[in-house]
Amino acid sequence: MPIYTPPIRDLQFALHDVLGLSQTGLPGHDELDRDFTGAVLDAAGKLASEVLAPLNAIGDQQGCKLENGVVRTPEGFGKAFEAMKEGGWTALDCDPEYGGQGMPYVLGVATGEMFVSANMAFNMYQGLTHGAYSAIHAHGTDAQKQTYLPKMVSCDWTGTMNLTEPHCGTDLGMLRTKAEPQDDGSYLITGQKIFISAGDHDMAENVIHLVLAKAPGGGEGTKGISLFIVPKFLVNEDGSLGERNGVTVGNLEEKMGIHGNSTCVMNYDGAKGWLLGDLHKGMRAMFTMMNEARVGVGLQGYAVAVPAYQNAVEYARERLQGRAVTGVQNPDGPADPLIVHPDIRRSLMDQKSFLEGARMLALWGAHLIDRSHLDDDAAAEGLVSLLTPVIKGFLTDKGFETAVLAQQVYGGHGYIEEQGMSQFVRDARITMIYEGANGVQALDLVGRKLAQDGGKHVMAFFEMVKSFCKEHGESEALAADFIIPLKAASKDLQAAGMFFMEKGMKNPNDALSGSYDFMHLFGHVTLGLMWAKMAVAAQAALDAGDGNAEYLKTKLTTGRHYMKRQLPMTATHLARIQSGADTVMALDAESF
Amino acid sequence: MPIYTPPIRDLQFALHDVLGLSQTGLPGHDELDRDFTGAVLDAAGKLASEVLAPLNAIGDQQGCKLENGVVRTPEGFGKAFEAMKEGGWTALDCDPEYGGQGMPYVLGVATGEMFVSANMAFNMYQGLTHGAYSAIHAHGTDAQKQTYLPKMVSCDWTGTMNLTEPHCGTDLGMLRTKAEPQDDGSYLITGQKIFISAGDHDMAENVIHLVLAKAPGGGEGTKGISLFIVPKFLVNEDGSLGERNGVTVGNLEEKMGIHGNSTCVMNYDGAKGWLLGDLHKGMRAMFTMMNEARVGVGLQGYAVAVPAYQNAVEYARERLQGRAVTGVQNPDGPADPLIVHPDIRRSLMDQKSFLEGARMLALWGAHLIDRSHLDDDAAAEGLVSLLTPVIKGFLTDKGFETAVLAQQVYGGHGYIEEQGMSQFVRDARITMIYEGANGVQALDLVGRKLAQDGGKHVMAFFEMVKSFCKEHGESEALAADFIIPLKAASKDLQAAGMFFMEKGMKNPNDALSGSYDFMHLFGHVTLGLMWAKMAVAAQAALDAGDGNAEYLKTKLTTGRHYMKRQLPMTATHLARIQSGADTVMALDAESF
Repeated sequence: MPIYTPPIRDLQFALHDVLGLSQTGLPGHDELDRDFTGAVLDAAGKLASEVLAPLNAIGDQQGCKLENGVVRTPEGFGKAFEAMKEGGWTALDCDPEYGGQGMPYVLGVATGEMFVSANMAFNMYQGLTHGAYSAIHAHGTDAQKQTYLPKMVSCDWTGTMNLTEPHCGTDLGMLRTKAEPQDDGSYLITGQKIFISAGDHDMAENVIHLVLAKAPGGGEGTKGISLFIVPKFLVNEDGSLGERNGVTVGNLEEKMGIHGNSTCVMNYDGAKGWLLGDLHKGMRAMFTMMNEARVGVGLQGYAVAVPAYQNAVEYARERLQGRAVTGVQNPDGPADPLIVHPDIRRSLMDQKSFLEGARMLALWGAHLIDRSHLDDDAAAEGLVSLLTPVIKGFLTDKGFETAVLAQQVYGGHGYIEEQGMSQFVRDARITMIYEGANGVQALDLVGRKLAQDGGKHVMAFFEMVKSFCKEHGESEALAADFIIPLKAASKDLQAAGMFFMEKGMKNPNDALSGSYDFMHLFGHVTLGLMWAKMAVAAQAALDAGDGNAEYLKTKLTTGRHYMKRQLPMTATHLARIQSGADTVMALDAESF
Repeated sequence: MPIYTPPIRDLQFALHDVLGLSQTGLPGHDELDRDFTGAVLDAAGKLASEVLAPLNAIGDQQGCKLENGVVRTPEGFGKAFEAMKEGGWTALDCDPEYGGQGMPYVLGVATGEMFVSANMAFNMYQGLTHGAYSAIHAHGTDAQKQTYLPKMVSCDWTGTMNLTEPHCGTDLGMLRTKAEPQDDGSYLITGQKIFISAGDHDMAENVIHLVLAKAPGGGEGTKGISLFIVPKFLVNEDGSLGERNGVTVGNLEEKMGIHGNSTCVMNYDGAKGWLLGDLHKGMRAMFTMMNEARVGVGLQGYAVAVPAYQNAVEYARERLQGRAVTGVQNPDGPADPLIVHPDIRRSLMDQKSFLEGARMLALWGAHLIDRSHLDDDAAAEGLVSLLTPVIKGFLTDKGFETAVLAQQVYGGHGYIEEQGMSQFVRDARITMIYEGANGVQALDLVGRKLAQDGGKHVMAFFEMVKSFCKEHGESEALAADFIIPLKAASKDLQAAGMFFMEKGMKNPNDALSGSYDFMHLFGHVTLGLMWAKMAVAAQAALDAGDGNAEYLKTKLTTGRHYMKRQLPMTATHLARIQSGADTVMALDAESF
């Protein structure tokens, strides 16, 4: 069975050495010192590695079953869900007014990484609930909040988001689900939704569906869409559960991975629903949920590859095969371990340097979100809005690639399901697709976010990189290996942005043909920045004699690897972007 | 169910417009004109699309079953196998002396692509047989050839190759299977082999296993290895089948993909075997089989992605979602088809330009093999030996990537098994692993093939590119789009080779840390050459008014896309190579 070791030390390094969490001056943050977060992370890591991880393969093998209209989760999931609730993990970063613990989002992400690594399919049940909680928290009436949030914070009730219909996913303007207003202020919801993660299951008393539907008078397209709260069981005045609502599971999808999560076709047949937020403003309300969900999926993208990497390392240390080209390393054995071979190390270093950079980006992004909420920091909000498609698209593409690299270390054994490496790859694959396929993220980035608020946020990003480089450009230890490559990569990104400005005005296809490459180019620059930040922190700790020197030196080596071996990709992405729309748009549909 | 359309026109273009098959002067080739190969390809395409393709999903869903020691193949496989035999397809490029049709290997590859595209798992039963046929043909005694080859040419009997054992895959020196010589000249084989594709099944009367084992007196490591013929049923003097040999199926592996092929643990328990080739020279004999198998796996790598691409195109034409950014294209529908969107086109063009380049490379490689066999062309043999790891490693990595891109076009629907896109990805994944994981291919390329015969073959490759560029460098239609980028890419490849020469001598790790990038760099240059060759042919046909102008123009556009958007990768690969072993070799095994 695959192993999983919670990366506590690396999470602590990111939270304290880089983000300086307890010194930020944000409300409540001064308590978040190393000891405090260490205790939280240890406890979450224990739950992840001891309770959730052992159920990962079982979830994959057994999957969910639809029996008489009820979804049965895999063996052991119910008990583990209770453990998660009892530990208060579902409430960690929720509002104390509704039973939450009021921790910042960054701690939710740090613990969330471990839960995802241990068992991605399982963690989705609470992840989706958190998204629905956020939407109700942001847009609900006081009565709605009182009715639903306490139960959702504790995960006694779980949540879902219902967007996709058979004929429309990205293009929600075409959706057909109807909402008919009733005299009592409620609506009757009728239609079919597909790909509803955690749409039904046997681990919660109630499921609170957030459903996009069209109410009369809203007009065409997305403008006519509203968001509704549709509980599986109606909730009585006193908060007890009433009758079953008119929503049923039509089918469970057979998927490539995340078998432990129930992906449902949901049929709404005059189900009772209540408007959440303003009428005909459903898209805006849904985006509260979507943005959080997208950062969450970016987190999944790299987190699922963490155990894949850890197992590949373990296998490379233990599997004896061949001899080191520079001389025998394991003279007492019949062969040397795989880890002596340069190409195996190349692969492991690629994995390691991506994963640690990705972790830093996810935590930095979460910290920016905390700044925007707790400090009303509009710059942080703008930056995170800009970076959301990068976090989602880049981290999931690269996370999948990383899982594939890890599987490859196993040779033929990696292809056998029993080893568990296939599951990491199959599970990782969905992160590139859901919550907006990565092509849609690229479109969001180039078509919307770049120009948002007059391009202010992207300019702020460049300014931040520039001043960072200026601040550390004289450092003898870091300039050549970190600052100069970061500058070069950032220059490529600016050149790409310039190309879009010049060409994209005349012909938007010239910009959009390069959107995917731009997302990756942006991702590399951002991870380059993360590595430069980590290098500065590691070097400072080394200079001060703080922390574990071996760990800090390893951190610097890993960063150098990223700068040397991954950052050169920016030039290729730029070249592709600058080739424009010419060959991309040339062929007739029939000529493909 | 996924569609599959045999790419007859494109195969014909490669065979005739580019390779000029009937004008090569090779023995038997003057008959191979357009009409002749057209008829062959049509018939093979019909079998592929009408008989094999409909069984692809069934094979994936049902898989193989081990029942009382016997492997049962999926429903319909047996009947399809009969159709394949009856059509003479298993005998196409085999020696007429043993019932073969004596066609060149290049036709075997052209038809083979279609069989793989239609049903990769199914086609492996005959593919493995062909490899075993080649080994016996090259190394067997006359008696062995008479006994086994006619039945293997017809696929009444199928073949396997048995290398891997639980503790060793790449490092065959450690293998433990024993061969004890008997008085009658036979051997008794004892040991366990794993990952034996088509190890047993119910579609042939007999299975002929080629087994690597150690006979006494051979010394340590790979030097002591011999190759043995071990039939499932012993063969009587008169050719009829005798008693069951001591070889049994220990287990069937549950794999990520290719479920329709039986991947067996084979237990040899004093099974009777006969030496094939020279005693203690088994590795050499096995390599006859391996080299063919590696080219065959390269073929699989891209061929399995062909239907993935075709279905993605079909989906992109039909699925209505969003509106073209430059104005509505489908005013009568609720939305425009996906194929209007630049990023979807970017993905489809990436897929198309890789697949057509890969097809050309596979056919060119096969043609070089024909030259080496039919014309004793040592230069062709050297070149194909150099290119074998590139064909295997690059085409399978990129084939997998292409299948993933195709799956992505489907959005969430691509993740649902019912659609069939997941199967293409899961099937494609194995091609990067078996017959030598791609890291081993890179090692073979950089550690062995580059320096083979004093570096003669790689120099010949550079010379060939150079003279090609010189010949066509003045072409106004082609120079800027094809020749100049090819030259630049080739220069990167030479710079990488130079780096290996300078640094690799002092520290082999400096070369081997870049081996994987070098394999990809070489792959891009080779595909660039293929595209330049195709562009020359297409332009010539256009200028002469031959052929379908629309098809030829599309070919040129597709080639330009490859040169503009894929070839820039060579610079990144070079940068990675030139970063050397520094960060790759720095960490202790414990620090990962």
